[in-house]
Amino acid sequence: MSSLEEKTLSTEQIFTGKIISLQVDEVELPNGKTSKREIIKHPGAVAIIALTDDKKVVMVEQYRKALERTLVEIPAGKLEKGEKPEVCAVRELEEETGYECEKIDWLTSFYTSPGFADELVHLYVATGLNKKVNAAELDEDEFVNLIEVTLEEALELMKNQKIYDAKTAFAVQYLQLKEALKTK
Amino acid sequence: MSSLEEKTLSTEQIFTGKIISLQVDEVELPNGKTSKREIIKHPGAVAIIALTDDKKVVMVEQYRKALERTLVEIPAGKLEKGEKPEVCAVRELEEETGYECEKIDWLTSFYTSPGFADELVHLYVATGLNKKVNAAELDEDEFVNLIEVTLEEALELMKNQKIYDAKTAFAVQYLQLKEALKTK
Repeated sequence: MSSLEEKTLSTEQIFTGKIISLQVDEVELPNGKTSKREIIKHPGAVAIIALTDDKKVVMVEQYRKALERTLVEIPAGKLEKGEKPEVCAVRELEEETGYECEKIDWLTSFYTSPGFADELVHLYVATGLNKKVNAAELDEDEFVNLIEVTLEEALELMKNQKIYDAKTAFAVQYLQLKEALKTK
Repeated sequence: MSSLEEKTLSTEQIFTGKIISLQVDEVELPNGKTSKREIIKHPGAVAIIALTDDKKVVMVEQYRKALERTLVEIPAGKLEKGEKPEVCAVRELEEETGYECEKIDWLTSFYTSPGFADELVHLYVATGLNKKVNAAELDEDEFVNLIEVTLEEALELMKNQKIYDAKTAFAVQYLQLKEALKTK
């Protein structure tokens, strides 16, 4: 057991929503003092680096109400209850972009905001993309513009802060690294 | 104006805490339907890739109550009201690790969880590190173990899921990319 551990003294459930819930834990710190921790519970999510045969990466532009603006991001979505991340990744890719994939490989997973939230994102790489005849069947309240960009265009979108979130920044850097290692 | 925009119909303030606050917005979607958005407001944060003269990267192990476990992360901390990110980065590096830096450069910024939170993390690279005689003066309720690792050790920590958060995963990949481009 780590000496850094914080023991839970009490938990107050503040809010239970459709996607997130909020609780405030009173904790005992390693020095015996007490403090409060504001904690968001989230079901977890997947994100997909989807690569077309002509070496473009599939992105979606969508409105983010928390930011009051649109962002360009790699396709992503939250896990349904009991859903396996890989199944979710295939489903979200298809729902958001209309692409089926022949191959999907797990790349890495990470917590997005460990200071206050337990959201874990599982990142996949999808290849062998085939556009379904029936275009993307979007969620009822999901509206996205589909774009396909080269690595250079993605870097330009980062410079202009159209790409501006952690998972997509990681994905673009992954493609840079892949490129750098290939031409080494 | 983007056709993807969601108009705010009403905002319900649910919780205002020490670090985060929670509101639920009722929005009008592009198709005229209404929906709810659960939104976390956060003051924003900085994170620092601090490189020692012998090419190690400084990390802190700390307990994350939201995850009920410790993580190894690059030093980070939230912005005080009105504080400039660069000033915050220098302060947090010193408070968490005891290191002053001669040089600090902005690398990039990204939203950590744009689906439900407005937390923006500003990432810096600090070099010319000098240990202060007085060791780290930690925040009252902050307890961390300091470690300094090579890139190879950092990759091993990722494999073992001790490093397991977005900003640190991005930082390690940044060091991989730097290495790959150097030896090209």
